[in-house]
Amino acid sequence: MFQKILVANRGAIARRVIRSLRQMGIRSVAVYSEADKDLPYLAEADETYAIGAAAPLESYLNQDLLLQVIKESGADGVHPGYGFLSENATFAARVNASGARFIGPSPEWIEAMGHKTRARETMARYGMPMSPSSGLLDEDWTATLAAAEKIGFPVLVKPAAGGGGIGMLAAHSAEELQNAVTQARSMAGRSFGSAEIYLEKLMVQPRHIEFQILADRHGNACHLFERDCSIQRRHQKVIEESPAPRLPRTDVEAMGDRIVQAMEASGYDVIGTAETLRDRDGLFSFLEMNTRLQVEHAVTEEITGIDLVAAQIRLAGGARLNEVIPSQPQINGHAIEVRIYAEDPVRFYPSPGTLKTLRLPSGPGVRVECGFSEGNRITPYYDPMIAKCIVHAPDRAQAIAGMRAALEATVIEGVKTNIPFAQKVLADATFASGEVHTGLGMQILGQ
Amino acid sequence: MFQKILVANRGAIARRVIRSLRQMGIRSVAVYSEADKDLPYLAEADETYAIGAAAPLESYLNQDLLLQVIKESGADGVHPGYGFLSENATFAARVNASGARFIGPSPEWIEAMGHKTRARETMARYGMPMSPSSGLLDEDWTATLAAAEKIGFPVLVKPAAGGGGIGMLAAHSAEELQNAVTQARSMAGRSFGSAEIYLEKLMVQPRHIEFQILADRHGNACHLFERDCSIQRRHQKVIEESPAPRLPRTDVEAMGDRIVQAMEASGYDVIGTAETLRDRDGLFSFLEMNTRLQVEHAVTEEITGIDLVAAQIRLAGGARLNEVIPSQPQINGHAIEVRIYAEDPVRFYPSPGTLKTLRLPSGPGVRVECGFSEGNRITPYYDPMIAKCIVHAPDRAQAIAGMRAALEATVIEGVKTNIPFAQKVLADATFASGEVHTGLGMQILGQ
Repeated sequence: MFQKILVANRGAIARRVIRSLRQMGIRSVAVYSEADKDLPYLAEADETYAIGAAAPLESYLNQDLLLQVIKESGADGVHPGYGFLSENATFAARVNASGARFIGPSPEWIEAMGHKTRARETMARYGMPMSPSSGLLDEDWTATLAAAEKIGFPVLVKPAAGGGGIGMLAAHSAEELQNAVTQARSMAGRSFGSAEIYLEKLMVQPRHIEFQILADRHGNACHLFERDCSIQRRHQKVIEESPAPRLPRTDVEAMGDRIVQAMEASGYDVIGTAETLRDRDGLFSFLEMNTRLQVEHAVTEEITGIDLVAAQIRLAGGARLNEVIPSQPQINGHAIEVRIYAEDPVRFYPSPGTLKTLRLPSGPGVRVECGFSEGNRITPYYDPMIAKCIVHAPDRAQAIAGMRAALEATVIEGVKTNIPFAQKVLADATFASGEVHTGLGMQILGQ
Repeated sequence: MFQKILVANRGAIARRVIRSLRQMGIRSVAVYSEADKDLPYLAEADETYAIGAAAPLESYLNQDLLLQVIKESGADGVHPGYGFLSENATFAARVNASGARFIGPSPEWIEAMGHKTRARETMARYGMPMSPSSGLLDEDWTATLAAAEKIGFPVLVKPAAGGGGIGMLAAHSAEELQNAVTQARSMAGRSFGSAEIYLEKLMVQPRHIEFQILADRHGNACHLFERDCSIQRRHQKVIEESPAPRLPRTDVEAMGDRIVQAMEASGYDVIGTAETLRDRDGLFSFLEMNTRLQVEHAVTEEITGIDLVAAQIRLAGGARLNEVIPSQPQINGHAIEVRIYAEDPVRFYPSPGTLKTLRLPSGPGVRVECGFSEGNRITPYYDPMIAKCIVHAPDRAQAIAGMRAALEATVIEGVKTNIPFAQKVLADATFASGEVHTGLGMQILGQ
C-alpha cells in the first residue's frame, strides 16, 4: 500500500482527498499555485509544495513540476482528483514510469476513453447500447449532411476530445448543421487542441443517468448504483442525486449489470463513471466513460456509506474489490448535491471576487465540500465552484426539503452565486415529481 | 400540527431546531439575549425577538418574557431545546395553559422525573433495576451514616434536584462522607435552590449507557438504541457514541426493551432519555430520566437516519409513533460525537473570548452543530460549548479515525479548547479497544 500520496489538484477535491489520506494513515503532499497559497486545506496536508504561477499551465497542468514534487517528496502515489490532469494518459504514464503510482485507471484506458468516437467504438464492441452517431467528420459537407440525415435530425455536433459540454451544438436542419459544424470545429480546436468533431442523435428530453464503477486489477468490477445528473445549465451539471427518481429499479439494475459485464470483459480498472442518456421510451444509450472520480461522487458515498476516495486508492494499490467494499452494497435513503458556483444565476458567467462572507450550512444530513475560508478569493484562473452541498435523508422529498433549508442557511457575500437558480429548481413542481430531463433546468429558468 | 414554533433556547440547539422547522414547513421564532444578538442562526429564523440582558435569569430563563413572545408572535408550540427551561415543569404547564403546546413530555412527567429520589421510586415501581441508594437524607448524622453503611462504601452523595454532575461527591469512608454531605448540601442549595441530597452506591469503573426513548400520546413507546457516554471530564460528557462498543447486543436490547415496557406501562410521552450505569458484571441500573432532547442526540440520528427533533415535534403534536418513525429502526454503522468546549484542556475552567478563527471540519461522514460564526464571542454567561462534531462511518475504527482527522482539520483561535483532551482520548489504546468506563477520560489525562 501507499505511504505518501501527492494530491495533484486544488480546492474542494484536494481537501477531500487529504481527508481520506489522513483517515487511512497515509501521508499527504499538497501542491499550490501562487493564487492558492492562502487556502485553508494546505494546513491539513503533511507537506506542501509551491508549484508556480496562477495560470493552470504553469502549475496544476505542469507535468514536469509535478513530477519534480513526486521526486522531492518521495511520494509513492498520485491522486489526480478531477479536472486538470486527471484524464491525461501521458501524465498517468509518466507518474507510473517515475516509480510512483497513478491513482486511477491504467494509462491505456484513460487514452482509449478520452477520445469520444474511439471510446464509443470500444464500448459498442463490449455490448454497450449506443445512440445513432457518425464517425469523425471530415471537411466534405455532402458526407456530413448524409451522415446527419442517416441519423435523422435533430443532431448534436460534438468535439471528439474534451468535455464539459464545451463546443456541443444542436442542429435541427441542414442549415443549422452547416453553422454548427463550423462553430464546433473552431471551439474544439481552441479548447481541446483538436478540431475533430462528430454527430450524435439529439434526444428529446433525455435523462442523464450515470453509473459509478469500481474495478480491481484482478478482473472484478461492480457498480455502486446510478446518479441522476439531469439538472444542468448549458450542459454543466448543477444538481445531482441518487438514486434516480421515478425509474424502475429493475431497468436501472439491468443497465448497471450490463455495464459491469462490459467492464469485466474489457479489463477496465480502478474507478470510472459510465455516463448514459435514457430516452423517454426508457432506452439507455452509452454516452462516455469518465476515467476518474466524479465531482458528484459524494451522493454515492452518502447512500452507500462507502468512501470512494479510499476505495480508489486501495484499488489502485492492487487490493481486490471484495477487500474494499461490502459484497452487497445497499442503497440507504436518498442524497442530493448542489454545486454552488460563483456565477451570475441567470446568465451563468463567472463572478470572481473575495468571499467576504462565507457561511456554509451544517446540521443533520448536511455535508459540505469546500476548499475555501471566509476572506479567500475566487480567482478567474480556475473553475468557479465555491462548494458542494450534499444532503442525505430517508427519502427524496425530505432530501429536497433539507437542501432547501440548507441553501437558505447559506450566506455568501462578495460574489454572485447560482443559489437562486438551484432554489428555483428545488421548489419546482416538475422537479419534485421526479420527471426530470436535461432541459428542465433551463426550462425552469425560462431559457 | 404546528404552524409556528418558538425556539426557547440559543446556540447550536436553537439552530438545529430552526433547521428542522424549516424542513417541516413550520415557521420559526427565535429569541436572543443582548449577548447573543449577533449570532448567525438568528437570520435563519422567520421571526426574532430580543428578550433581555445576557444573564440567563433575565432572558432564556425568564418565563414571563417567553410567554409574552408566545403571545406576540402567535406561536402555537414551544421547543425548549436542552438546558434552560427544558426540564422546568412550571414553564411547560404555563406554555400549555397559554394555548400553545410545550414540545416535550407532559408537565407531570417533567415534574416526576426532575426530582431524582422520586424518579427512582417511580421507575422502580415500573420494574427498573436500581443500584442501592438511600432516601432523602435529613440532618441526622447517625441515620446518614447508617444509610451509607447499608449501601456499603464507597457511596456517592447526590443532589436530588439538578444535574450535570454539579454537587456530586464520592465518599469512601465515614469521614469523607461527613465532609461530602456538608459540601454537597451547600452546592445543591446554591445551584438548584434545593439542599436535598441522597446517597447512591458508587460503582467501580461503570459505563454510562443511555437509551433514547420516543413515545406518543396514545400509549406507544420505543427506544432508538443506546448511546455510550462514558468518556467524561468531571462528570460532564465529552465523547458520546452509538452503538456502545463491546457490549453484547442481546444484553443491550433486553435492557432497552425493559425500559420501553416501563415507559408504556407508565404512560410516558414524547421524548426522553433513560440513563443507566452498567457495572463490570454487566448489570444495568437506572440512573435518571432526562425529559428532553439530549445534547448528544445527533449520534442516534446518524445511525438511525431519524430526525429526532422532527419526531419530537410530531409526537408532541399528537402523531402516533408508527407515523413518525419506521416500524423496525436499524443501526447503520457507527457514530461518535465530540463536544468542543471553550475551556482549558487540562484544568477544565471555561475560556471565554472571541472566536478569532473558527474553521470547522467538513467532508464525508462529518456533521457539525454550531451556533457561532468567526468573530462571535463565547461569553461567560452560558455553557461554553462551541460546537459538536459528529462523525458517522461504517464501523467504530473508521469513525474514530474520521473524528481524529476532523479534529485535526479544526482551527479555533481566540479561546482555549478541549480538543487536545479529545484527541488524547481518541488516540488511546484502551479507548480504541472499546473497554471504556466513566473514569477513563480522567485516567487518560493522568488525573
